Amino acid sequence: MIKRVAITGGTHGNELTGVYLIKKWQQNPKTIDRESFETLTLHTNPKAIKACRRYIDKDLNRSFATEDLQNEGTSYESKRAKELNALLGPKGAKETAVDFIVDLHSTTANMGLSLVVSSETPLTWEAIRYLCAKEPKLRIYRWRGDEEDAFVDSIAPNGFAIEVGAVPQGVLRSDLFFQTEELVSHLLDFFEKRNRGELFEDELPKKITVYDHVKLVDYPRDARGDLDGMVHEERQDRDFELVSKGDPLFRRLDGSVVYYEEEEPLHALFINEAAYYEKGFAMTLAKKILL
Amino acid sequence: MIKRVAITGGTHGNELTGVYLIKKWQQNPKTIDRESFETLTLHTNPKAIKACRRYIDKDLNRSFATEDLQNEGTSYESKRAKELNALLGPKGAKETAVDFIVDLHSTTANMGLSLVVSSETPLTWEAIRYLCAKEPKLRIYRWRGDEEDAFVDSIAPNGFAIEVGAVPQGVLRSDLFFQTEELVSHLLDFFEKRNRGELFEDELPKKITVYDHVKLVDYPRDARGDLDGMVHEERQDRDFELVSKGDPLFRRLDGSVVYYEEEEPLHALFINEAAYYEKGFAMTLAKKILL
Repeated sequence: MIKRVAITGGTHGNELTGVYLIKKWQQNPKTIDRESFETLTLHTNPKAIKACRRYIDKDLNRSFATEDLQNEGTSYESKRAKELNALLGPKGAKETAVDFIVDLHSTTANMGLSLVVSSETPLTWEAIRYLCAKEPKLRIYRWRGDEEDAFVDSIAPNGFAIEVGAVPQGVLRSDLFFQTEELVSHLLDFFEKRNRGELFEDELPKKITVYDHVKLVDYPRDARGDLDGMVHEERQDRDFELVSKGDPLFRRLDGSVVYYEEEEPLHALFINEAAYYEKGFAMTLAKKILL
Repeated sequence: MIKRVAITGGTHGNELTGVYLIKKWQQNPKTIDRESFETLTLHTNPKAIKACRRYIDKDLNRSFATEDLQNEGTSYESKRAKELNALLGPKGAKETAVDFIVDLHSTTANMGLSLVVSSETPLTWEAIRYLCAKEPKLRIYRWRGDEEDAFVDSIAPNGFAIEVGAVPQGVLRSDLFFQTEELVSHLLDFFEKRNRGELFEDELPKKITVYDHVKLVDYPRDARGDLDGMVHEERQDRDFELVSKGDPLFRRLDGSVVYYEEEEPLHALFINEAAYYEKGFAMTLAKKILL
């Protein structure tokens, strides 16, 4: 039985899709009301939202590792992470304030409508299977990236992040805004049906396609570590497509091309996401599997 | 005779096309060397570039009005504007340090390759005519926007800004990067030919299409002035297209549509530019004329 669900947005203050969906739902809570459980809506990083920046001191969506929640960190996001953990978690506890967290994000990469999943619980994956049936263009990325188990949704036992793109930071795109809203609505319907015992096995596909994280790829850099190139124009916007040996990946500032040189073909995701320039990755590579 | 030209970038620190073109040319000055004149390259807002933000205290590209340059403003950009004016101007003087400024910008709007022009001098328009002949997809926007005569390029007697898009803030796009570089190269060729007396009248089209600024249009807002809607999905990315009475302009958060209600059809530009959310305009409207 699912009792409480949290929908969170504005974890990155310049990802406006989540910021304004939360605003919309707080003004009209009826649109997300379901009978059998309670839904909380929450702006997780109010200061960053006000500043329209990803974060104030550090990335809030990398601030929920168990050791981070126990340390004495005094940055704004570090304190905020502990507040959120108290409000929605606590992380790892037998009893948590909410059963499920869906955290709303957007990306400058052409990720379409996608889920970024680190939770491995049966409920999380049952929800994903339901959503895949309802929304055929939804894509699933199983993340093991730069810092693991440190996302907002990790403080509840179940959950994931929704990522939509391409949309620039500080911008709302109408198409992606309403697609995200519909996806969340399907998720709430899933909990409602499940609680009422009205969820039928044929609504859950037996197998779904999952992009399983393999590694991060950085931009070309100069001797001082500064950017010396950009995503090749033939790779730009082609998220979820296969990259094979000899395919162009980058163009250096001088115009020369950097090719993919590994033997194993992999799928490129999060291509040219603005926030990952400082993290040092130009794209992530994943293996496409059936789960 | 053109003696000195300045190419400036990073006026907005998160518009990376200009930031990295300047870096490229500073590392390889030969690519922009021409015999008959000197070319300066300059990052105008180093602190904002380092922070990857549009500005630190205020918009540098609205800081060059004559009264701003004379006042006691102590913000970072206000001080920087005075330094740049001393270095490249002074504005309005008979003798200025440079004859022409081309300032490199990018936008999240789908502006393609375009020039934003406030200068009305014969040299500026001769250069524009030359570029229109060399680059048929180039578009010209004659700007009279939120704050007039306050751009970086206004401190030299002649000049304009190059705007390319759509590219998110904090992102390089290879296609637009190299298109911008080529356009600047044509501009330098123009000065070189003109100085050498090798510019022929048939290289300058007699008439060019210009989008002449008419007005700014804000987003739907709620009673507190906060955003209550977004660009309608049918208007998004359709910069330079005609908007006629009854066309959908916006979608409110609740999904309802706001239509264009004026009798006069006008062309929409800078649709959904991230930096203009805080300035209070969702798009600008212009009249298409032959000049």
